[in-house]
Amino acid sequence: MARDPGTSDYSDPRPKEKCGIIGCTGTSPVTSDLYYGLRILQHRGQESAGLAVFDGGLKAKRGMGLVHEVFTKEDLLGLRGNSGIGHVRYSTTGSSVLDNAQPIVVNTSYGEIALAHNGDIANANEIREELSKKGWAFMTTSDSEVIVRLLANEIANTGDVKRALREFTNRLVGAYSLALMINDTVYAIRDPLAIRPLCVGEGNGRMMISSESVVFDALGFKFIRDLKPGEIVELRADGFESTRLPHPNHTAHCMFEWVYFARPDSVLDDRLVYDARVKIGEQLAREYPITADIIVPVPESGRAQAQGYAQASGLPVVEGLIKNRYIERTFIMPDQQEREIGVMLKLNPIRSAVKNKRIVLIDDSIVRGTTIRKIVQILRLAGAREIHVRIGCPPIRFPCYLGIDMKTRNQFIANEKTVPEIADFINADSLGYLSLRGLISALKHSRDDVCLGCLTGEYPVPIPGEKLRREKPLEMFAESAGGSPSRKKTKTAA
Amino acid sequence: MARDPGTSDYSDPRPKEKCGIIGCTGTSPVTSDLYYGLRILQHRGQESAGLAVFDGGLKAKRGMGLVHEVFTKEDLLGLRGNSGIGHVRYSTTGSSVLDNAQPIVVNTSYGEIALAHNGDIANANEIREELSKKGWAFMTTSDSEVIVRLLANEIANTGDVKRALREFTNRLVGAYSLALMINDTVYAIRDPLAIRPLCVGEGNGRMMISSESVVFDALGFKFIRDLKPGEIVELRADGFESTRLPHPNHTAHCMFEWVYFARPDSVLDDRLVYDARVKIGEQLAREYPITADIIVPVPESGRAQAQGYAQASGLPVVEGLIKNRYIERTFIMPDQQEREIGVMLKLNPIRSAVKNKRIVLIDDSIVRGTTIRKIVQILRLAGAREIHVRIGCPPIRFPCYLGIDMKTRNQFIANEKTVPEIADFINADSLGYLSLRGLISALKHSRDDVCLGCLTGEYPVPIPGEKLRREKPLEMFAESAGGSPSRKKTKTAA
Amino acid sequence: MARDPGTSDYSDPRPKEKCGIIGCTGTSPVTSDLYYGLRILQHRGQESAGLAVFDGGLKAKRGMGLVHEVFTKEDLLGLRGNSGIGHVRYSTTGSSVLDNAQPIVVNTSYGEIALAHNGDIANANEIREELSKKGWAFMTTSDSEVIVRLLANEIANTGDVKRALREFTNRLVGAYSLALMINDTVYAIRDPLAIRPLCVGEGNGRMMISSESVVFDALGFKFIRDLKPGEIVELRADGFESTRLPHPNHTAHCMFEWVYFARPDSVLDDRLVYDARVKIGEQLAREYPITADIIVPVPESGRAQAQGYAQASGLPVVEGLIKNRYIERTFIMPDQQEREIGVMLKLNPIRSAVKNKRIVLIDDSIVRGTTIRKIVQILRLAGAREIHVRIGCPPIRFPCYLGIDMKTRNQFIANEKTVPEIADFINADSLGYLSLRGLISALKHSRDDVCLGCLTGEYPVPIPGEKLRREKPLEMFAESAGGSPSRKKTKTAA
Amino acid sequence: MARDPGTSDYSDPRPKEKCGIIGCTGTSPVTSDLYYGLRILQHRGQESAGLAVFDGGLKAKRGMGLVHEVFTKEDLLGLRGNSGIGHVRYSTTGSSVLDNAQPIVVNTSYGEIALAHNGDIANANEIREELSKKGWAFMTTSDSEVIVRLLANEIANTGDVKRALREFTNRLVGAYSLALMINDTVYAIRDPLAIRPLCVGEGNGRMMISSESVVFDALGFKFIRDLKPGEIVELRADGFESTRLPHPNHTAHCMFEWVYFARPDSVLDDRLVYDARVKIGEQLAREYPITADIIVPVPESGRAQAQGYAQASGLPVVEGLIKNRYIERTFIMPDQQEREIGVMLKLNPIRSAVKNKRIVLIDDSIVRGTTIRKIVQILRLAGAREIHVRIGCPPIRFPCYLGIDMKTRNQFIANEKTVPEIADFINADSLGYLSLRGLISALKHSRDDVCLGCLTGEYPVPIPGEKLRREKPLEMFAESAGGSPSRKKTKTAA
Repeated sequence: MARDPGTSDYSDPRPKEKCGIIGCTGTSPVTSDLYYGLRILQHRGQESAGLAVFDGGLKAKRGMGLVHEVFTKEDLLGLRGNSGIGHVRYSTTGSSVLDNAQPIVVNTSYGEIALAHNGDIANANEIREELSKKGWAFMTTSDSEVIVRLLANEIANTGDVKRALREFTNRLVGAYSLALMINDTVYAIRDPLAIRPLCVGEGNGRMMISSESVVFDALGFKFIRDLKPGEIVELRADGFESTRLPHPNHTAHCMFEWVYFARPDSVLDDRLVYDARVKIGEQLAREYPITADIIVPVPESGRAQAQGYAQASGLPVVEGLIKNRYIERTFIMPDQQEREIGVMLKLNPIRSAVKNKRIVLIDDSIVRGTTIRKIVQILRLAGAREIHVRIGCPPIRFPCYLGIDMKTRNQFIANEKTVPEIADFINADSLGYLSLRGLISALKHSRDDVCLGCLTGEYPVPIPGEKLRREKPLEMFAESAGGSPSRKKTKTAA
Repeated sequence: MARDPGTSDYSDPRPKEKCGIIGCTGTSPVTSDLYYGLRILQHRGQESAGLAVFDGGLKAKRGMGLVHEVFTKEDLLGLRGNSGIGHVRYSTTGSSVLDNAQPIVVNTSYGEIALAHNGDIANANEIREELSKKGWAFMTTSDSEVIVRLLANEIANTGDVKRALREFTNRLVGAYSLALMINDTVYAIRDPLAIRPLCVGEGNGRMMISSESVVFDALGFKFIRDLKPGEIVELRADGFESTRLPHPNHTAHCMFEWVYFARPDSVLDDRLVYDARVKIGEQLAREYPITADIIVPVPESGRAQAQGYAQASGLPVVEGLIKNRYIERTFIMPDQQEREIGVMLKLNPIRSAVKNKRIVLIDDSIVRGTTIRKIVQILRLAGAREIHVRIGCPPIRFPCYLGIDMKTRNQFIANEKTVPEIADFINADSLGYLSLRGLISALKHSRDDVCLGCLTGEYPVPIPGEKLRREKPLEMFAESAGGSPSRKKTKTAA
Repeated sequence: MARDPGTSDYSDPRPKEKCGIIGCTGTSPVTSDLYYGLRILQHRGQESAGLAVFDGGLKAKRGMGLVHEVFTKEDLLGLRGNSGIGHVRYSTTGSSVLDNAQPIVVNTSYGEIALAHNGDIANANEIREELSKKGWAFMTTSDSEVIVRLLANEIANTGDVKRALREFTNRLVGAYSLALMINDTVYAIRDPLAIRPLCVGEGNGRMMISSESVVFDALGFKFIRDLKPGEIVELRADGFESTRLPHPNHTAHCMFEWVYFARPDSVLDDRLVYDARVKIGEQLAREYPITADIIVPVPESGRAQAQGYAQASGLPVVEGLIKNRYIERTFIMPDQQEREIGVMLKLNPIRSAVKNKRIVLIDDSIVRGTTIRKIVQILRLAGAREIHVRIGCPPIRFPCYLGIDMKTRNQFIANEKTVPEIADFINADSLGYLSLRGLISALKHSRDDVCLGCLTGEYPVPIPGEKLRREKPLEMFAESAGGSPSRKKTKTAA
Repeated sequence: MARDPGTSDYSDPRPKEKCGIIGCTGTSPVTSDLYYGLRILQHRGQESAGLAVFDGGLKAKRGMGLVHEVFTKEDLLGLRGNSGIGHVRYSTTGSSVLDNAQPIVVNTSYGEIALAHNGDIANANEIREELSKKGWAFMTTSDSEVIVRLLANEIANTGDVKRALREFTNRLVGAYSLALMINDTVYAIRDPLAIRPLCVGEGNGRMMISSESVVFDALGFKFIRDLKPGEIVELRADGFESTRLPHPNHTAHCMFEWVYFARPDSVLDDRLVYDARVKIGEQLAREYPITADIIVPVPESGRAQAQGYAQASGLPVVEGLIKNRYIERTFIMPDQQEREIGVMLKLNPIRSAVKNKRIVLIDDSIVRGTTIRKIVQILRLAGAREIHVRIGCPPIRFPCYLGIDMKTRNQFIANEKTVPEIADFINADSLGYLSLRGLISALKHSRDDVCLGCLTGEYPVPIPGEKLRREKPLEMFAESAGGSPSRKKTKTAA
């Protein structure tokens, strides 16, 4: 899926993963590892960043902006500690943004607790309301405060941290990968369906947990393994102790991590993201073969898929679109032209490469459809003869309640239009969405072990007003399955 | 009392009032009034500032620094609202400072609550601990969070804001002037002993509450009156509604507001601060007459007292010390000389004015004694013949638990040394502290209506480990009473 | 003269001295002394600050803002050098402000030159134009660039720095106190009429030059003496070498330094500023005696004068106006009320002190008259019975071309109105300007040795379109001389 | 060539082009076009940015940082003007950096001149020294000041701007693409050898000049043509007027623009950069065929070349290295590990993609060799079986004096080692540099029309101490010509 070009009225409401988390324990300060680890996880959130460490007492800093903007050298020197957790958060707006930044820190009768959360608690509002009626007041609007208050309450009730950790999740319905620091001890928890990623590694005499394995690669740490569904890990400098929450016999890994969100060089639950995307591309080539000259990926989101398509089709990949890597932040000129300038500033075609060419244009997914439509237009203006859009994910039609920021049903073009109508809207000569079957085969996980809520409307946990997923044959999702891609206008029949 | 010259090891731990608060309700945006009002209250806190307004929903911004540094023009445009409260806070350190900034904002079952607090809850830690044991977790270390959570809890329990406002203070022991905004309604509460100041005014079709009356002067508003002990005021655009908490038949106004902290042009509880200070000066002249040539005030804190001393003694006031008004912030050069440079940068003598002169040097109070000692040295180096120090407050010897940042007993020189020893330590030819009787007469309040805890060690509310004030004849405090000032060394007998 | 309250349309165009300068040479880094010295000189310019040091090569930093805002600790560590000069500059606006900040640094065939300048070159535009016609291009709009280019040119022509220093000033007409660093050597130059102040001191094994002696006091240095008219001083760590430019047998010290601009604790050309101001106050009391109750100074600019008035009249000084010391920067709310709020935010009356009182209100000078008018209004609203304004300087009616930022003739109320009309305009019961004779007697310099251009329109150096001063009896300036003050309206006759 | 990973001791001294320039004239404000245009040119310089516009008078702002960091919305509103020029500058260090930022602005007898310069004046120091001896003083260390002073001098001498523009370049030896604004008129000049790029376009009723054509694409402007060698263009809103400087019958376009520096989607002197790079890749495949499994480009600098290699070899391109796009700025932790972390943070291998693979690793060029060495190591650690490095440029061995920041001879590994030794140093199984012949054929320019100074040591203009290029057969450069690549160690013979 093409990235947000920065102007809100133009851009696709791209699915925004809520966060990246990290935690580390050693026998010497771990600040440096946490800091660099957060920079590696920066793609999971660019709005705010925070670190909390324990050095006799808890010290923390959170701020708005990229990791390297939030922390000065002086900050880092002041955040020395042998245990710590960190967090990066996705972009949002509003007056309370800093208050919602993490790690969230609370003082309890037991001591200090810091929490970094990746995910979405489906029943957070329900819990919040219930507790509000009991007289609890909340200082932020984040799920994380609900979580940490439940935990603090449970610790006070039980007087036993380990028991509390096992029990406070009873009330939580949803996706949660958590990094917790309770006084000087770092814990990691992954929800019983293992919806969001979380893994553990070691290096430099330290144990670390991280949202993605790429952090271990970059820091020279050794990847140990993913956390198991419902696993609670307590880090020590020289190892970790593990217990399990009750959990079903299947998982619900978010498919969108492989499709779009995670770094291609991360391994999530035994499946390298890059491999999944290449396989998706191959699958697309099989599902929607087309006579064309070149494959053009939407940079960067369609690159690996394009490679897979090339391997399966024999067509060459051509870098027909150049991305301006300095145009990442929002524009500031209040001009009426700005919207139009936006996409042109970000992406520019290589005319000689695309002129008169029949192009297979590959991206990871479509939400609203406006970005891909603009890209098609850019290529047409550059002289492309035919543009066949291939999308590495089935149509997204349902909200995500489990950690991706797609909340309203009417933002999805696939709910408003049929596939042929979408092809028409984006002015593609043909349009092919990856089939559900194809997706699943690419992920190398059983369909039952993957969350497909945003595609099927059936969710692995109960969501008020939504259907709960039950066993169902794949055939039921035939609609978006492959065969012949939807062609635009009269060509559709071709 | 001479101001902190900016280097921590040099400076007196000057008593720091915790805050200034403000609130306003009108039929059009009150942001501008709140903003300028906070700037007028800036002397009550320079560390952080914050505003919360209601405009359909609650909007807030808090930040570190002076009011004009915290709020950009854009911020203020984004904070339009017909109701709002504001806060300035004293300086402190530590990683959680921003989290402790106010107004503190919470979401409850009833709606949104914003709180700005001036004072100190003596039993805050006790309440906090008790609630922690019940499983409540706290996100800040401030008393204000304790207050707002108690309030939210009471609203949830009673389902009735007005009743909750009357009842939630049952648990609070201490000093509290509060500005509250509950959804779109602004309330002000003054504790039953009226320890911290709070007054109400009107102007521009708006009602306003403020820590000090000077805000009304500057904004062109009309001062209406001080809040009564235990009064709860609900602001409307065209008036206010008042109820009372149970309250004793005496007050406990903090004497230090008149002695040092408030602006001289504010009227607190019917006594103009300036008048009180002039009267203190007159009283000092009567208690400690001396043969001298000139009176030199420590700028700015001893100026009005010097004028009173002049009126009573007939000696002329001479501006013998010049203050560098640009040296307000801390120094940054890590030099060993810095400490010495510190005081020289801030205060410089007028040699011709002080040379060979017998000087009455007047300041408001002494805490540790190091600053006044330095000033005496400066004057001696400039050629002063005699230096007779007169202090507009009896010796401070006990901690304050009710809103002034003097917490540890061993910081007070008056606990370590007798008055003659202090005179010797600061190298004064004579030293006279205002008598308690003199102070009370200057304040024009009955001794029973003023808090003298830091002077007598007897407090108007129960403080664990401290004495509760009871009726006692003034004669008991004879030690620091006037008569002959303590003279240094052998001169003491003179 | 009352300070600019910060809003341009309201404020008096207060005379703004262009700068403060400093220079130092030692055998170890002098950065710290330069930095603190600049902070002490901050009152001479708040717009920009800069330091240049020599440490093998020249290193410099200049920036907009106060000294402590411009230099971070890191900057100062990077500016270590055994020789250096510094500069603070007055406030202005426009896109080229930073370019005009000083020290200005140029590279020449001889080496690197840094220049800090206080003053005004009356024929700068003429020189600039002449050199422009020769093909010289200027990168700033400041006089200082003209000066430094002339110097560089002269050094290239003569190949001899000392000769060049003596000769390049031939072209300069006007006021200039200069701190120069040519490679590692610091020079100071004072113009032949000694218009702007400049003095030399020593301490810590270093020699220092400074605009004002107060720097030496604050740093613990020893004041040596003022530079003589036309003196060129070359600093060494252990002394200095002196030569003289040709100079007349009289000086033209700017009277406004004593009247308003310099710090009261500085000694300028053998006259302590404070003493001069006290004497001015005494003189005012003699010239315009009045039956009144109290003297109220405009803080801070009228304080010493008020003391003198008190000494001569026996009336008591009362602090009837309180200044908000946090309101120094411009306001940001774009409200129509802002102008009105401006002055109220800055100054507030003590009602009890002024109510029903007959007041002698004392300030240093009047330019446009709008500020003093507002202050009179504030006092009247506070209940003052009579307000008798006394101004410690004769009427300012002519532009300054020699270092004070008063350039246009029509900004002076004294050119538009007679003294009685001014009294009427500012609504004073009486108004008395210090006589020229009185001013001169207070300065303790011969009339011939002081520049009175802004008062008399006759200048000590040729200014195109203006009169050159010649010997003239004081009687010619009888107009503003004392006797009976101008009373308002019908009271004038009284 | 792999990008600087941000730590100075690790990184290759990558050739840094000095700047990007832009200019525009219209009948309404062009600020927005200039601003966005500069953002598009950001890849040509990230250290500082500046704009100068004419709106009655000249207004300018320059600052350190990226374009979007330097200009606030308020700045841009204050820089409205119908004519203007802009500049982005490469990164450097030192205290005078801001002074060297551009556009440089001077005031002359004729009016105001603003200059933005891309290139290098080979005899700048010589001119500077000569003029210094005449008494000229320089305020910056940049060539641009030399240029603008020569121009101002010529205008003053001739009194005729157009004549001056034609004549002032007589003294300049080197590379210069200039955007000039003289009062309200924008001029562009390209040196007689057309070394640096510069082109003209139109759109929105405006004429624009820009370093690269991609600006026109992004703004929706129409590319008109490149400036001719020695062409002077005067922009009007509706067209432009052109004259020519004397120029030889050949050009000396910098080959490095196509090899590395320019954006791939720019067309420089009739050759699309992307096409040149693809062709380079094809050429590499022909010159150094190898039995391998996959092609891995160094992102982003080797991407187009990899595509060309694929087209010619039939091997698939695989994205085996993932770049962290958020790691652009320098690191701040002063850890000893930092150097090692640096490259790992920036580039991470896809293990599954490279494991056991025989890899053709493609980059654009090698300077010091340390970066490519590290990348080879990364791939080996990820399990690559063989790594055959192919470099899209002959060995760089000589300094550039014409606009690329490669100044010292001993920084080039190709001067220290033979190609086999380099292969050994970087631990490649084989190493092939593009032949000079291959490069020239890819550029589609005659060898005589391209500057190859950094490859051959023969320069198109006289450089003191260097050889001037004369006609020479290509065969002389046989050393680096293709055939068999240099293999490491004993494999070399294979």
